[in-house]
Amino acid sequence: MDASKQEQIESGNLKIEWAKNHMPVLEQIRKEFAAEKPLKGRRIAMALHVEAKTAVLVETLAIGGAQVAISGCNPLSTQDDVALALDCKDNISCCAKYDCSNAEYYEAIDKVLDIEPDITIDDGADLIFKLHKERRDLLPKIIGGCEETTTGIHRLMAMQKEGALEMAVLAVNDAQTKFMFDNRYGTGQSAWDGIMRTTNLLVAGKTVVVGGYGWCGRGIAMRAAGLGAEVVVTEINPVRALEARMDGYRVMPMANAAAIGDIFVTTTGNCDVISTEHFPKMKSGAILANAGHFNVEIDLDGLKKMSMGEKIVRKNIKEYTIGAAGGQKIKINVLADGRLVNLAAGDGHPAEVMDMSFANQALGVKYIAQNKLEHGVHKVPAEIDEWVASLKLKSMDIEIDRLTDKQRCYTDDWEAGT
Amino acid sequence: MDASKQEQIESGNLKIEWAKNHMPVLEQIRKEFAAEKPLKGRRIAMALHVEAKTAVLVETLAIGGAQVAISGCNPLSTQDDVALALDCKDNISCCAKYDCSNAEYYEAIDKVLDIEPDITIDDGADLIFKLHKERRDLLPKIIGGCEETTTGIHRLMAMQKEGALEMAVLAVNDAQTKFMFDNRYGTGQSAWDGIMRTTNLLVAGKTVVVGGYGWCGRGIAMRAAGLGAEVVVTEINPVRALEARMDGYRVMPMANAAAIGDIFVTTTGNCDVISTEHFPKMKSGAILANAGHFNVEIDLDGLKKMSMGEKIVRKNIKEYTIGAAGGQKIKINVLADGRLVNLAAGDGHPAEVMDMSFANQALGVKYIAQNKLEHGVHKVPAEIDEWVASLKLKSMDIEIDRLTDKQRCYTDDWEAGT
Amino acid sequence: MDASKQEQIESGNLKIEWAKNHMPVLEQIRKEFAAEKPLKGRRIAMALHVEAKTAVLVETLAIGGAQVAISGCNPLSTQDDVALALDCKDNISCCAKYDCSNAEYYEAIDKVLDIEPDITIDDGADLIFKLHKERRDLLPKIIGGCEETTTGIHRLMAMQKEGALEMAVLAVNDAQTKFMFDNRYGTGQSAWDGIMRTTNLLVAGKTVVVGGYGWCGRGIAMRAAGLGAEVVVTEINPVRALEARMDGYRVMPMANAAAIGDIFVTTTGNCDVISTEHFPKMKSGAILANAGHFNVEIDLDGLKKMSMGEKIVRKNIKEYTIGAAGGQKIKINVLADGRLVNLAAGDGHPAEVMDMSFANQALGVKYIAQNKLEHGVHKVPAEIDEWVASLKLKSMDIEIDRLTDKQRCYTDDWEAGT
Amino acid sequence: MDASKQEQIESGNLKIEWAKNHMPVLEQIRKEFAAEKPLKGRRIAMALHVEAKTAVLVETLAIGGAQVAISGCNPLSTQDDVALALDCKDNISCCAKYDCSNAEYYEAIDKVLDIEPDITIDDGADLIFKLHKERRDLLPKIIGGCEETTTGIHRLMAMQKEGALEMAVLAVNDAQTKFMFDNRYGTGQSAWDGIMRTTNLLVAGKTVVVGGYGWCGRGIAMRAAGLGAEVVVTEINPVRALEARMDGYRVMPMANAAAIGDIFVTTTGNCDVISTEHFPKMKSGAILANAGHFNVEIDLDGLKKMSMGEKIVRKNIKEYTIGAAGGQKIKINVLADGRLVNLAAGDGHPAEVMDMSFANQALGVKYIAQNKLEHGVHKVPAEIDEWVASLKLKSMDIEIDRLTDKQRCYTDDWEAGT
Repeated sequence: MDASKQEQIESGNLKIEWAKNHMPVLEQIRKEFAAEKPLKGRRIAMALHVEAKTAVLVETLAIGGAQVAISGCNPLSTQDDVALALDCKDNISCCAKYDCSNAEYYEAIDKVLDIEPDITIDDGADLIFKLHKERRDLLPKIIGGCEETTTGIHRLMAMQKEGALEMAVLAVNDAQTKFMFDNRYGTGQSAWDGIMRTTNLLVAGKTVVVGGYGWCGRGIAMRAAGLGAEVVVTEINPVRALEARMDGYRVMPMANAAAIGDIFVTTTGNCDVISTEHFPKMKSGAILANAGHFNVEIDLDGLKKMSMGEKIVRKNIKEYTIGAAGGQKIKINVLADGRLVNLAAGDGHPAEVMDMSFANQALGVKYIAQNKLEHGVHKVPAEIDEWVASLKLKSMDIEIDRLTDKQRCYTDDWEAGT
Repeated sequence: MDASKQEQIESGNLKIEWAKNHMPVLEQIRKEFAAEKPLKGRRIAMALHVEAKTAVLVETLAIGGAQVAISGCNPLSTQDDVALALDCKDNISCCAKYDCSNAEYYEAIDKVLDIEPDITIDDGADLIFKLHKERRDLLPKIIGGCEETTTGIHRLMAMQKEGALEMAVLAVNDAQTKFMFDNRYGTGQSAWDGIMRTTNLLVAGKTVVVGGYGWCGRGIAMRAAGLGAEVVVTEINPVRALEARMDGYRVMPMANAAAIGDIFVTTTGNCDVISTEHFPKMKSGAILANAGHFNVEIDLDGLKKMSMGEKIVRKNIKEYTIGAAGGQKIKINVLADGRLVNLAAGDGHPAEVMDMSFANQALGVKYIAQNKLEHGVHKVPAEIDEWVASLKLKSMDIEIDRLTDKQRCYTDDWEAGT
Repeated sequence: MDASKQEQIESGNLKIEWAKNHMPVLEQIRKEFAAEKPLKGRRIAMALHVEAKTAVLVETLAIGGAQVAISGCNPLSTQDDVALALDCKDNISCCAKYDCSNAEYYEAIDKVLDIEPDITIDDGADLIFKLHKERRDLLPKIIGGCEETTTGIHRLMAMQKEGALEMAVLAVNDAQTKFMFDNRYGTGQSAWDGIMRTTNLLVAGKTVVVGGYGWCGRGIAMRAAGLGAEVVVTEINPVRALEARMDGYRVMPMANAAAIGDIFVTTTGNCDVISTEHFPKMKSGAILANAGHFNVEIDLDGLKKMSMGEKIVRKNIKEYTIGAAGGQKIKINVLADGRLVNLAAGDGHPAEVMDMSFANQALGVKYIAQNKLEHGVHKVPAEIDEWVASLKLKSMDIEIDRLTDKQRCYTDDWEAGT
Repeated sequence: MDASKQEQIESGNLKIEWAKNHMPVLEQIRKEFAAEKPLKGRRIAMALHVEAKTAVLVETLAIGGAQVAISGCNPLSTQDDVALALDCKDNISCCAKYDCSNAEYYEAIDKVLDIEPDITIDDGADLIFKLHKERRDLLPKIIGGCEETTTGIHRLMAMQKEGALEMAVLAVNDAQTKFMFDNRYGTGQSAWDGIMRTTNLLVAGKTVVVGGYGWCGRGIAMRAAGLGAEVVVTEINPVRALEARMDGYRVMPMANAAAIGDIFVTTTGNCDVISTEHFPKMKSGAILANAGHFNVEIDLDGLKKMSMGEKIVRKNIKEYTIGAAGGQKIKINVLADGRLVNLAAGDGHPAEVMDMSFANQALGVKYIAQNKLEHGVHKVPAEIDEWVASLKLKSMDIEIDRLTDKQRCYTDDWEAGT
């Protein structure tokens, strides 16, 4: 092994160690897995963002007795030092690299499936999709999969609706201790961490346009306001639009928001949230970032076609120049090629939220291993959710109240009135 | 009619008129009800907080063709001028008065049921409870009821669980356009409106203890922070406790919070949230308010027993003096006798949120009238929710985006990946 | 004394007692004044908002040995029950009543000056103005005055600039423990308390236009945001305008803000902040409130002239109807006749902030009594400021750090570098 | 020039270009300087943080006709690529490098002074100190200096108090458009940017202890709260302590805060804010960062002496292990060796705030060049402040109101009353 590779592995291990020290719930699970080996003999195929926190999950599964193969789930979210470090560990093989081509990306997915998994873990459902399309021979062996993100759940629900889902999937994303925390506080912070470190620009006094007011959007808007921005929300759902307004934000169609935004962050899970209709209306210098799973939210193909020229103006910032009415030129700055800004231009979510998300993953995998689930999308059992929350509170030295007997009676008693 | 009564009626009508002008969704429904008379021939028994916004709902139902009888749902929440004004209107009888005794309260409930209703509207389920206990003869005629509040839903779910619920009930509280707005933004603001006007004390720089982090508690905590307080949350649910902490608040058991709080607001739906265990730990001068449905959250009986003396120290504030360790005296100020502070010491929720809640009520009643529902607790149909939100947005001049065809396809298409 | 008057006095005393219990700094001063009688033989003329907190100051001065006469400083800010209660106390005479005419107002000012004061206390400088214009014979006896509010300081600085100020005045408003707290947290909360109780409308989701971003405006904007509003600020000072923007608010001229505001609050100290140019641009239903000292900020004369009709639509709300382009009618709701909304439609500032402001007043009066000040506007000595802050912290059980010797040296030492 | 150096220069120029594009006020000044050459023939010695925004200022001064020599003002705040790029530009020489020793640091200061400056620009007063101590021969030629930061002003005021300041200095830090923005919004954001990117930890749900509630501390506390933290403030000044409490934060001595903090940020300008008294009370895993000018706020020498071992646990994080009562070990993580975390572990302040700070610098230098100032510390003329604010607003497309004639009269007229 050459010196530079050794250095990278050390760097990766340092990051993993740091993350591990800030994931106390997963640590507790790791201890139990080490003692009980609940995944003994299992083969797990994973496609997740390959960075330090994920590595802690992978190790936990391996310690639980599993053989694990992992690829990335996004071309720009892999951290190469972590990937190398992970690949050196026992019972783990990692085939992910930063800035891979689409071909390389799917090749890695394939390679991971070569492990002939019992269980899959996806972030965006690419493994499951591949299984159903090209590796159908492997499907019968699968006893279940876990899905990490809203976008993956959407795809799986669409598959299920069409009767096309031929395996059991645990909707880890939909655990309360996952989406309420990871999607909101995790994305909320890490998206801005990514944007700030990439641009070195002031958020205060800016008009920030947040595309989508789901859990991620709520987090991004909340933190934008917390950093001093004026926040504009775009939505297609009237209830969410109303909630955004009651939270103090301006709400309007993107066609109007385009003209006033300084920074745009998309997080809808849908395509073309910002499109060729919008670019020409923008202020020159506008910053565009995506925090949704796929790089489809900003229509980059459309932008490239309109563009008179593009150049790198700072690390992870590409500036496109388009013509506007009156011969003027508009410069549009796209961060991280429209890929998840928190991962492609940062270190992803803070360790503490991934601690909860991945605790759900680890316990979900164990649950799949120990229960026979029918085909279809399943909820994470409420006990897991509550257990994760309780353990997290404990790790934070937070105690809470318990119902007294009298209170429990009162709760059950419908006869007590005014 | 004597002059003073006439004056009261005028005062009541003025309040109703003001509320009506700020309830545009209900206005739209009123127009439709006036044209279509969907409640023609229906008899509706109601037990709600009798104040201006409720009056607008009652009128709407009457305009829709119904005969309506209404009583209060809380001894201190009736505004007498509004009650009198309402009682003068066509097809409406109102038997509610402020500061009634428990006996009077239940008498009024009985009287309202004498109308032999087809449909009930409850806020706390007292009508439904009475029907099931003492007026069972009326049950067969009932085609359904609506329930306004979390506490009522809890009681009904408990009844249903025991197999004791013998009618259909629409859980209006659980409509998104109800609980996300009324419970959060409505209670959040009106509780503090009530506390501020009653005490004339500064919220900034105080330690505010919020008992319960449900939708009401979230609103109360959010506004306390918005007014400059340090917020402490008590909870029994670990997920909610964790959420409160991530929202920046301190979380601890009430036994600890008791010693540091300046203002306490309970909103759990349960009894004894603040109890005899806690009073002796409090700072002298502590302010106690309740924003939950029933006056059981603060153990007032217990407090009275401990107390060496009580006196009115300002309108709606009763000061109890208890002894503490070392011979010291602790003065505890209870607002509005532990009744809903926003209603008993204020004007209740802002008109705009009640607009949405009562739009759900009016459309819920129409839905009951036009559909044959089975016994049990039913959800408000999603179309009603979305319709209310859309109309509200329109009344606020807010436009939102619509899915393009391409986006709709993308949403349905599970094959699009990285 | 008739029964109703007796009742009023009791009500007033109850309010005063409540306020007193929440003004610990003034309590400490009262104890010292009782022991030392530093104002023995002094005659003090006051023109302040006559409500409970002011009464505690007046009592404190009387306890310190002074003879005190007090009138109101605003036609709608007097609370009659408090005024009556105050007038019954030893060495105090009070001639103030709610809703007095301008003639009665100035008559009361005159009557208060008949005491032939050594010292004056003003809130808006009306006493001092009267002294310089019509009661010049009294000037030579005056050893100094205190001024409570920004507007008064402005007037006094203008007088001084013209060489017209013939007495010493202590700028109590400019003490840090006054303007940073009273103007910001006091006005911030009490203005919204007044607006919420008067309108029963939701602040969340509204566009609130704040005219002026001085200390009062900062407080009002901060609390509007804290209550869920979108905040728009208008300013004439570029530095303040920039600060408002960096605080996350929109900034624009009133001519633009007029069209988008739901609630307007003025607090500039200047006239015509909202004028006839703006009314026709407003949304029908707009709410207008003033939190500045004088009722000149909203051009009510102009509005009345444009108006096709005015009526009371709720207590303390007058609705004006004006015609707009296209034959439409715009309804404009003015709270409390454009008088200080927190005092004319509420109970004024919370007791705890007035505790600090009036501690500065009491100590300022003592300072005047014990020092010979030259004519002109003087600062409150820094020791008073620091003493008030320290005592306030102590009353809140808050301890802070002290400089160590090493730190004190470091502070003084300019030789320590990188 | 070797390839790697060329690459670095390109990287530096890219950063400078990006900064320049986000500093519109300075751009306007640059245009004027290019036309008027107000600094023709001047020699300017600078000691500032050598990174992209500073480079834009340096270029501006050179374009104005000056010969400029610049060194760093902090051992870890220099960005080498920017320093190299700067050194290549006309009329500019740069002698700064990242992670220099103390000897190298002062050598560079000396070298910069060799230019025999007319004017100095300091950030921390090191140039001025050196001039007064070791290069007194150069003093007579100096016509004035500018000082950028609070700490420098403190040193200069201490010098002036002792009669030791023998040149004129413009207190650029004390311009409103500097300290209200740079210190508050700049430090507020950049400190957290630095902490988040360095730790990848969640701020939400953490207890953040902010040492000092000056303008920097206010910004850091505000953003910590905006990111979801519970904020604790320590202070020595009672008025500031009270303000912090009214802003909703907990206030206590560091001795108490030490035990509950998860993240500590010091910004007092003083030494030993966190000292050997505090380390043993801390939670294991505590994060310590400094945002004050010098690395004296955390007593690192003391920590090193107590420490059983230290290691790098992530880039820019050093972990110290100390023993605690009961044989336990406490791990304490210090970011960036206690140097300014925003500069030593980030890219410094956002460009937009430095735009204002450096506009004040550029105009301050011009002011010194065109006026003969007496020895001592001078204020930046108010016109400069207002001009900078106005230009900044213009660059943000923000218009504000202007006083009407009537309003101007009203302001000047002290006769208008109630």
